[in-house]
Amino acid sequence: MLKHETRFRVRYAETDQMGVVYYANYYVWMEVGRVELCRALGVEYKQMEIEDGVFLAVAESQCRYLSPARYDEEIVIETRLENAHTRMVTFGYSIRRASDGLELATGKTKHIFCGIDMKPKRLPERSRASFGIA
Amino acid sequence: MLKHETRFRVRYAETDQMGVVYYANYYVWMEVGRVELCRALGVEYKQMEIEDGVFLAVAESQCRYLSPARYDEEIVIETRLENAHTRMVTFGYSIRRASDGLELATGKTKHIFCGIDMKPKRLPERSRASFGIA
Amino acid sequence: MLKHETRFRVRYAETDQMGVVYYANYYVWMEVGRVELCRALGVEYKQMEIEDGVFLAVAESQCRYLSPARYDEEIVIETRLENAHTRMVTFGYSIRRASDGLELATGKTKHIFCGIDMKPKRLPERSRASFGIA
Amino acid sequence: MLKHETRFRVRYAETDQMGVVYYANYYVWMEVGRVELCRALGVEYKQMEIEDGVFLAVAESQCRYLSPARYDEEIVIETRLENAHTRMVTFGYSIRRASDGLELATGKTKHIFCGIDMKPKRLPERSRASFGIA
Repeated sequence: MLKHETRFRVRYAETDQMGVVYYANYYVWMEVGRVELCRALGVEYKQMEIEDGVFLAVAESQCRYLSPARYDEEIVIETRLENAHTRMVTFGYSIRRASDGLELATGKTKHIFCGIDMKPKRLPERSRASFGIA
Repeated sequence: MLKHETRFRVRYAETDQMGVVYYANYYVWMEVGRVELCRALGVEYKQMEIEDGVFLAVAESQCRYLSPARYDEEIVIETRLENAHTRMVTFGYSIRRASDGLELATGKTKHIFCGIDMKPKRLPERSRASFGIA
Repeated sequence: MLKHETRFRVRYAETDQMGVVYYANYYVWMEVGRVELCRALGVEYKQMEIEDGVFLAVAESQCRYLSPARYDEEIVIETRLENAHTRMVTFGYSIRRASDGLELATGKTKHIFCGIDMKPKRLPERSRASFGIA
Repeated sequence: MLKHETRFRVRYAETDQMGVVYYANYYVWMEVGRVELCRALGVEYKQMEIEDGVFLAVAESQCRYLSPARYDEEIVIETRLENAHTRMVTFGYSIRRASDGLELATGKTKHIFCGIDMKPKRLPERSRASFGIA
């Protein structure tokens, strides 16, 4: 299974008045994780958008929150390519606190390849191998 | 079933370079929807935090994206109280475009009542009726 | 002087762990204010982008924070068109708490009209009157 | 003059439909820069909040945008401690594109030391040396 780890620190902007990271921001972190996984797989997402006119539209997203992330903590996000076809791709995520490895959240996002018109489009042949598509 | 509708306009800040609303922002909208539902139910969420020291920690969130929301569109979010106990509450959401009623996304969030220490806590008796808890 | 008032409520997502609105979010509110001022002036910003290919790129922004805004407060933002030429426009803002009119912040943003290539462009003639340009 | 450099990549979430970084997000970057400068100076901002009950409330912020930042670019932010007293501190920022050093924006933020009640408070003696205050 193709996977990748990315690290970063919780920003003050990402907290809310409960003193923990606001729940929607975990999805921003998942995006950071999948961009880095794509890069590791040899897919420059930016190039895919510009040269091939292919975008990854999100079809579904979900997150389970296990323990709160707090300001300034170092976070490790492990992103896995769970499933990929020429029309869609699914990523899985495990978000951990770097200091002790405590799992803070798990997530999943399902994406559809589409054109700038937001209509479904098959992934161009030259990018398929990177996603492990035969 | 207890439900409530809230309206607002898509902000420029909420779009991304794909020209549509960034996927994490639908969760911010769900928060706006459930705050307004709570207010309609007679629960001032702010007071609950301040007076009772009870917070609604998110345990799970999910969203299915059906059609992209775009800048400046008026959005209607319908929030339903799907399930409530003294320890947790689940909200369901339907996000529509106001102009033609097209459903853009559906979502669900599950919350645990907890104290400022982020440990689970039962909902105080005086707030139970508002959530329809016997 | 052309001006306009817009109202909205502080979102939970906009607070940070200091228990007040995160400082960058005042700029999001200024954007909400100037979009509504433009609409009131008869300029549909969305149409300007789509039909004329004219964007308002921000050249400068500033904010003075007088008193903190808090979750769930109703906010009134007054936006003024301070200065407009065919190449640039300046907006001024006063952000107040609706309940008692207390001024929470003042701000200013300076914008340059530009094309999708981000190069400066003159404002099309048909939009000039709306901005009060002779 | 005390200064520090921090690097990170532009997130997709930070762009808007103009295809560039949304203007308010530069202020989030400034926050990342000043936290790292504080850390380099030996001030753990998190500890200052927790142990001393001292917060850095923003009094003023400003930014000049010179050239747009784009998705996935590596950014270098240089943060300088411009001025510090027991009651306030000013930071200056230069935001550059890492690939060629092009300056994208400059900024400034002025902060007041305050307690959790948001009232002004003098910086505790033990933190003064870190800020270069005699």
